[in-house]
Amino acid sequence: MPKRSAPARKAAHASSSRVRPQIFMSSGMTAPFCWSWIDKFFFLIKYSKSRYNCYHSARQSEIVCDLPGITGMNESWNEHSGNHMNTANIAMRIGIVGIGQLGASLAARLRQIGCLYLAALTREEGKAEELRQSDLFDAVTTAPEEVIPLCDLVVLCPPPQYIVETGKNLLPHMRSGSLLTDVGSVKNAIVQALEPEALAAGVSFVGAHPMAGDERSGWQYYQADLYHDKLCFLTPTEQTPFEAVEIIRAFWQAVGCRILEVSAEEHDLACARISHNLHILAAAIVLQNLSPESRGADQAALAGIAAAGAFRDMTRIASADPGLWRGIIELNAEKTLTALDELMTELDRFKQVIANQDWEQLTRLFTQAKTLEDRWREDVSIP
Amino acid sequence: MPKRSAPARKAAHASSSRVRPQIFMSSGMTAPFCWSWIDKFFFLIKYSKSRYNCYHSARQSEIVCDLPGITGMNESWNEHSGNHMNTANIAMRIGIVGIGQLGASLAARLRQIGCLYLAALTREEGKAEELRQSDLFDAVTTAPEEVIPLCDLVVLCPPPQYIVETGKNLLPHMRSGSLLTDVGSVKNAIVQALEPEALAAGVSFVGAHPMAGDERSGWQYYQADLYHDKLCFLTPTEQTPFEAVEIIRAFWQAVGCRILEVSAEEHDLACARISHNLHILAAAIVLQNLSPESRGADQAALAGIAAAGAFRDMTRIASADPGLWRGIIELNAEKTLTALDELMTELDRFKQVIANQDWEQLTRLFTQAKTLEDRWREDVSIP
Repeated sequence: MPKRSAPARKAAHASSSRVRPQIFMSSGMTAPFCWSWIDKFFFLIKYSKSRYNCYHSARQSEIVCDLPGITGMNESWNEHSGNHMNTANIAMRIGIVGIGQLGASLAARLRQIGCLYLAALTREEGKAEELRQSDLFDAVTTAPEEVIPLCDLVVLCPPPQYIVETGKNLLPHMRSGSLLTDVGSVKNAIVQALEPEALAAGVSFVGAHPMAGDERSGWQYYQADLYHDKLCFLTPTEQTPFEAVEIIRAFWQAVGCRILEVSAEEHDLACARISHNLHILAAAIVLQNLSPESRGADQAALAGIAAAGAFRDMTRIASADPGLWRGIIELNAEKTLTALDELMTELDRFKQVIANQDWEQLTRLFTQAKTLEDRWREDVSIP
Repeated sequence: MPKRSAPARKAAHASSSRVRPQIFMSSGMTAPFCWSWIDKFFFLIKYSKSRYNCYHSARQSEIVCDLPGITGMNESWNEHSGNHMNTANIAMRIGIVGIGQLGASLAARLRQIGCLYLAALTREEGKAEELRQSDLFDAVTTAPEEVIPLCDLVVLCPPPQYIVETGKNLLPHMRSGSLLTDVGSVKNAIVQALEPEALAAGVSFVGAHPMAGDERSGWQYYQADLYHDKLCFLTPTEQTPFEAVEIIRAFWQAVGCRILEVSAEEHDLACARISHNLHILAAAIVLQNLSPESRGADQAALAGIAAAGAFRDMTRIASADPGLWRGIIELNAEKTLTALDELMTELDRFKQVIANQDWEQLTRLFTQAKTLEDRWREDVSIP
């Protein structure tokens, strides 16, 4: 990777950043675990803007990328898709638990940025053996006691419905003062169940949800850049030590994510709306059209032949792992029902307008949707 | 383009085709216009399978591609995406009416395959001037009488709600014995209104719907390969002369389409299900999530930041032209309401299952949808 001189780096910062990072020294830290941590970091850098106020600008990735998360002894600069990505040696021993697409991609990325020590914990010996061949980890095991006590940070990557149980089983093996985070796409149920037990064990848990991954599952589908420029929710509570949040933020930033802090409740409602109910919707479209039982063999065959680009895009996620999505919906049932109700209210509105043959109103609704969609695509730079 | 020898061509046919084409000579033709046409074609080739029975195999594009539509004096073979695409000089004078993405793409493709004469008819002088600069057409005009009487075939490409009116206005200018087709994504309303008047004017109208185009509108977005391997519905009636259907079939095949003949009613219901209600759905998802009026400014902003890949794909078509889609829904209101009701029934089923916390049943529904979706993707070769 090309290394830039300090003045060149400073100039790149000055031209692209709008928020000035401030150097935040360890002297301000209070929680005891931070003292054991801070010697592993050269320094941490912190926003000058308030945490809860940043999400309106969080889409501007240059801001996030200009806030180096973890800046270790070696610093390297990586011009990737036009952004100045800060990468750093992570002077932490990290355990990844549950190795699917998300866990393996995290490992690949951590390898890339020079993680000190990387351990994998999986349930199946066969999979452990495969992972040992992959060279993604320094250690792979099915026995938590072999690696978890060594880790400064443990990342829980099983399917969401197993995160709480897995976390609870690991806590007795974790060192006091160490950190725990997860990748669960549901947060409230996980945070509520896991954080008190973690704190009681002297471990700081910070709920995280990196919005990464696709409809495929399995560690074989790992990509080192899976997290690049993806949004990662952090859902600390009033109980979460501030410094733990800062380190976990820096960790996910180093992996490539943009960070957004919200409450777990707020997270779950937002994800029910823009993700969980879309999975139900995709499945519903498929069942409506392609199912010989509901549509008859001829109609289902005709739909399969006639289905084109819109159908392809709108049903892609129906290919996702059913067990994974059952777990997500189970953990977020109430908010998903709310989101489904909202969507059905919108559909009812369209039905009324069509039944009333109010074509002017239909044009207005389509125009409003197009304006919002086009603006969104412009904001997030989708071509 | 590389030219193959006749034996090589024959060998390619033999290895990939399952339906043997039969040579169909002009002697079997009855309608008078065919005699004026047939001298413009070297020969026509016709299915040995019955027309209405072919759609179960229509996805196998090698079959369609092995049935050369129009085989003119010059024949060229084009190895494009692994298929043997038959292209030919089209010895017809063709008029395209209404030049948006579809009309301009058709022109670009017809140019590529050596159309004899290509005329554009548009309503606006300013646009006509632009089109003259584009070199897509031999003639561009706003006056139907200047080009329509010269044309052997007229293709109606305005937005669907203007097709009937446009067609009726052109019929007085069309030569008796000439052909008329369209690209309207709704068929029953158009065929019912246009075919009787066309027949009365001695013109054969064959309703067509090539499922091509994307969410962008405007002739600037033309692509010569827009129709390549796309499905094109033909919706002839009992009144449509058989030979007219064969020539229009050959025309759309030469442009690159796979052909599927169904009734206009059957077409409209299928498209309401796999296309029209998806547009409403995309708009509904956008309005549910991104509208500050319905969701509040903060929630709408949060949704905009959190929305990821699934949202991007499922709302892409909300960017389509509102006027175009208002017209489509207006012409196909009844079937669209049916399709929306079916979809809402599916969504209700999911709601019940979630409300009852019947997670096994939820897994079954997701699994069923995944199986159908995966099989469909395999059938149509989506990676």
